[in-house]
Amino acid sequence: MDVSGKWQLETIYPDLIVMLKVREVFYSGRTQFQQVEVLGSDIYGRSLVLDGKTQSTERDEHIYHESLVHPGMLMHPDPKRVFIAGGGEGGTLREVLAHHSVSQAVMVDLDREVVDLCREYLPNHHQGSFDDPRVALHHEDARAYLQNTEERFDVMIMDLVDPLEGGTAGLLYTQEFYQITKSRLKPDGILVTQSGPAGLISFQECFTTIFNTLSQVFSYTMPYQVHVPSFQTLWGFTLASDTELPHMATPDRVDGLIDRRLSKSLRFYDGEGHCGMFSLPKFLRLGIGDETRINRDDAPVFMV
Amino acid sequence: MDVSGKWQLETIYPDLIVMLKVREVFYSGRTQFQQVEVLGSDIYGRSLVLDGKTQSTERDEHIYHESLVHPGMLMHPDPKRVFIAGGGEGGTLREVLAHHSVSQAVMVDLDREVVDLCREYLPNHHQGSFDDPRVALHHEDARAYLQNTEERFDVMIMDLVDPLEGGTAGLLYTQEFYQITKSRLKPDGILVTQSGPAGLISFQECFTTIFNTLSQVFSYTMPYQVHVPSFQTLWGFTLASDTELPHMATPDRVDGLIDRRLSKSLRFYDGEGHCGMFSLPKFLRLGIGDETRINRDDAPVFMV
Amino acid sequence: MDVSGKWQLETIYPDLIVMLKVREVFYSGRTQFQQVEVLGSDIYGRSLVLDGKTQSTERDEHIYHESLVHPGMLMHPDPKRVFIAGGGEGGTLREVLAHHSVSQAVMVDLDREVVDLCREYLPNHHQGSFDDPRVALHHEDARAYLQNTEERFDVMIMDLVDPLEGGTAGLLYTQEFYQITKSRLKPDGILVTQSGPAGLISFQECFTTIFNTLSQVFSYTMPYQVHVPSFQTLWGFTLASDTELPHMATPDRVDGLIDRRLSKSLRFYDGEGHCGMFSLPKFLRLGIGDETRINRDDAPVFMV
Amino acid sequence: MDVSGKWQLETIYPDLIVMLKVREVFYSGRTQFQQVEVLGSDIYGRSLVLDGKTQSTERDEHIYHESLVHPGMLMHPDPKRVFIAGGGEGGTLREVLAHHSVSQAVMVDLDREVVDLCREYLPNHHQGSFDDPRVALHHEDARAYLQNTEERFDVMIMDLVDPLEGGTAGLLYTQEFYQITKSRLKPDGILVTQSGPAGLISFQECFTTIFNTLSQVFSYTMPYQVHVPSFQTLWGFTLASDTELPHMATPDRVDGLIDRRLSKSLRFYDGEGHCGMFSLPKFLRLGIGDETRINRDDAPVFMV
Repeated sequence: MDVSGKWQLETIYPDLIVMLKVREVFYSGRTQFQQVEVLGSDIYGRSLVLDGKTQSTERDEHIYHESLVHPGMLMHPDPKRVFIAGGGEGGTLREVLAHHSVSQAVMVDLDREVVDLCREYLPNHHQGSFDDPRVALHHEDARAYLQNTEERFDVMIMDLVDPLEGGTAGLLYTQEFYQITKSRLKPDGILVTQSGPAGLISFQECFTTIFNTLSQVFSYTMPYQVHVPSFQTLWGFTLASDTELPHMATPDRVDGLIDRRLSKSLRFYDGEGHCGMFSLPKFLRLGIGDETRINRDDAPVFMV
Repeated sequence: MDVSGKWQLETIYPDLIVMLKVREVFYSGRTQFQQVEVLGSDIYGRSLVLDGKTQSTERDEHIYHESLVHPGMLMHPDPKRVFIAGGGEGGTLREVLAHHSVSQAVMVDLDREVVDLCREYLPNHHQGSFDDPRVALHHEDARAYLQNTEERFDVMIMDLVDPLEGGTAGLLYTQEFYQITKSRLKPDGILVTQSGPAGLISFQECFTTIFNTLSQVFSYTMPYQVHVPSFQTLWGFTLASDTELPHMATPDRVDGLIDRRLSKSLRFYDGEGHCGMFSLPKFLRLGIGDETRINRDDAPVFMV
Repeated sequence: MDVSGKWQLETIYPDLIVMLKVREVFYSGRTQFQQVEVLGSDIYGRSLVLDGKTQSTERDEHIYHESLVHPGMLMHPDPKRVFIAGGGEGGTLREVLAHHSVSQAVMVDLDREVVDLCREYLPNHHQGSFDDPRVALHHEDARAYLQNTEERFDVMIMDLVDPLEGGTAGLLYTQEFYQITKSRLKPDGILVTQSGPAGLISFQECFTTIFNTLSQVFSYTMPYQVHVPSFQTLWGFTLASDTELPHMATPDRVDGLIDRRLSKSLRFYDGEGHCGMFSLPKFLRLGIGDETRINRDDAPVFMV
Repeated sequence: MDVSGKWQLETIYPDLIVMLKVREVFYSGRTQFQQVEVLGSDIYGRSLVLDGKTQSTERDEHIYHESLVHPGMLMHPDPKRVFIAGGGEGGTLREVLAHHSVSQAVMVDLDREVVDLCREYLPNHHQGSFDDPRVALHHEDARAYLQNTEERFDVMIMDLVDPLEGGTAGLLYTQEFYQITKSRLKPDGILVTQSGPAGLISFQECFTTIFNTLSQVFSYTMPYQVHVPSFQTLWGFTLASDTELPHMATPDRVDGLIDRRLSKSLRFYDGEGHCGMFSLPKFLRLGIGDETRINRDDAPVFMV
């Protein structure tokens, strides 16, 4: 193996760097908000990289997007109006639109250029979802949008970049922000947010804090996690609602819901996978129990 | 962050390399059989690296060793005599010895020098296990040992390096080898083997083949998987027996067994964790179903 | 310094890899003959990389091209007809055309696509040289071209990729090839060829062999070397002729020739620089003296 | 080529990192003053690395040390008393002691532990020089030593780490320091200092500033440079004196001096090599001419 050639380096932790052989650079440039790259590799196919961090890849984005979208959607009895913050690749939108019940998906992604680049370079991610007549796409800060809207949603999905210092989403993980989202959810509405890495090494970077912050605002919260290969670790998600979240403990129940309520079969998420995702390793349960930090606008907890 | 300094590179896949900052080199040298390094890093503490592959690290070896040992041990009603192949760090031995029921642990590791190095440099791994009077330690090829012994075991644990071409364990994953192990198990005995990477990218490297091969030899087999951070992916294990393996479906049952049958509390493995480990992602279940390859002495399937 | 981002890795020796931060990928693809990349970096500006090896960079190509072209051209009393093999970037052509005396420059580069890519992406290299009416550009194997031509040249310049096994130029460094070039040189003609790395670590890879091979064919040979930053080492060149090569020992003589015979000032090459280039370190002189290998068509010496 | 294994990364410029495969770590630790590593590689043999920067390697230290020591020593008519600042490996000392004329070598290296480590781990560097009865070895700051001594020297050799911010030698390259050295030189004494990288990319980091600073203090200064493979670039040196420095323009003169005045033959430095070293590339001569910065105690110019 000759290593000569182009590689993407990604600092996972300060002492751990992952090197990915790049076969093609589909796009590389700066938008108004961030550095964007669409890279091709033999392992992952096309990857979207924002500010040096892999957001999703053709090879495994279905793990991330199905895991983000379907548990919350299926826990809701009849999700008609869905809100998406971020999600520029269109993968979250694609999964939301697969639900028969959905009549409108409002997606707010700050960076129009990123969305345009994804539409051009990541067709296998969005699969034409942006052209669905149920979609309303806005390009502005999600927090500002929510503060100004009268709309109410059944499900709200936060598909945001990680809460990095100086990043674009630092104020979209705070107690104040979650108060705003709560006011825009219908009474039985459900919020779900990607919540950062959840592996043994990194679960305290933001996962437990996001969970704890949501728990201050909502009556019911539920954490889960799944292994996303291109993220190099387990990845965390959190569900939150003021109505009790159903446990859907048997695989059959989940599989039945998928059959009835989706217009397509899923590649990753199913009943047995659901059990795996919601069975948290002991260290995560202990970590959640021990967490006392709360993200606040004036003192956000940033990832290292 | 200045990257100047010593780094350990590890080729995970041909196009993916992980770089770990090395803080200390405790040992580096060749034994009769392999290249050995004991490295220290801020992330993982002390790591054992054989032929360039991380075998286990102080930070997360408990995930690997508890997951390898306890499911099979607890599925057995009363494991008295336990066989371990490989396991030079002593972590597997440590977990086996924590079971009250164990009266003898026979460990066969080919490489005496590796075991001696682990005893010296990895005290937090073995925690003195090698000095337990119940331990019989042999240094020879595990296959040769088993062919020549009259002993019969309740549980046999294969804690081997991956089946790499030219490696030391290529013939310890074949149908013929499993026939030998079967003949050394008591009628209700249980075998478990580490089975290589089980993530979306790499589960076909050896995991599904090992499962399929064991299924040719034993009446009952059961795969499971867990995320081991220092392996950079999910990791697979396979249980095999000619007696039906219990499902232990409720967390409480597992937690109760742990309480009753172990002389210590566990850091990773528990009832809820058990559910997560045995709830296989859809792609793994499909991959297992599709696998037709069988490891045979004259045509072993090597990892890439 | 965060190392996240795109880097070009180049294996200089098997145990030494250079990583260059890539700011822009201007082109990346395969031609009929080789992998081509035009990369932009803060350090070197635009680089041409063929089959993973840096050929020249905007920042320091003038060192390489001026050193390759001018010593031989100025040693010739009146170079009118000049032959160039390789040289796709156009930098060698640019330097040749700066000589008032030149009436025709015949350039033969195998790979039309590379030349077209250089014309498009490396304007600061060629600076429009390809449009000079004195240029005749051919795309075929330089050896075949020379075997079939009746032309005779004053100066022949070999600006070829290194003699790598499986590369495009393996047979353009052999005794048989040099016999052909000799037959196409006018009686007082001078040949010069890039001759690979000439630093302490690597001068035996091909530099001394090329020198020794040329010495079998030509009555007079003269080695020289210069530090080219982007090549990470000293770089070797060899002059050869059947007419005695002048030593031009005083800086003033070289500076005077540059003034009179060139239509532009030079950035790197001058009288004092000439002295530096032709004053070989002791290890190189000893290495040349010790070399016995000869490149032959049926037994070429390839770089590692 | 499998890249798995230990590598030393060294940041040469912020966008250029060199990776060296490490075969052995002979020593790694912190002294009172700096991080020290003695590494073994196939390319370079044993390397001394201080604070992440390669100081010298077994393979090419003779290029550096012979180039640092002999030009100044041979320009002096009869060097008896020699001062060395730094030079912990003992290579500079070794070269100084090879001069018949030397009756005393005073070496002041701040870091006793580094010198002890070099004595233990770098025998091919020092070759027993520390045991020569002409040597007086002191461990304190070289500036303090010189301020307090009544001694006067024929030749003073500054073999120091680069002037890095926060490093140990920042105040050993300033105008004020050079005033002190001048006062400790005999009237016809000569000072020479290593002067940092002198390649096209990096000569402005400190080389031209050191030259310019010395030129403020001494009547005569003379720069030279040589390619040191393990430094990845040309390396600069500066001679300074209040007596005119001889040009030694003919190789024969240098070779004759080496024969007469040294007790051993040299591996790198000779008459022709001298010409190469003192024939500066045009960009260096222009760079020196353009330089206006002066290192002062209250405003030192640090390398990036």
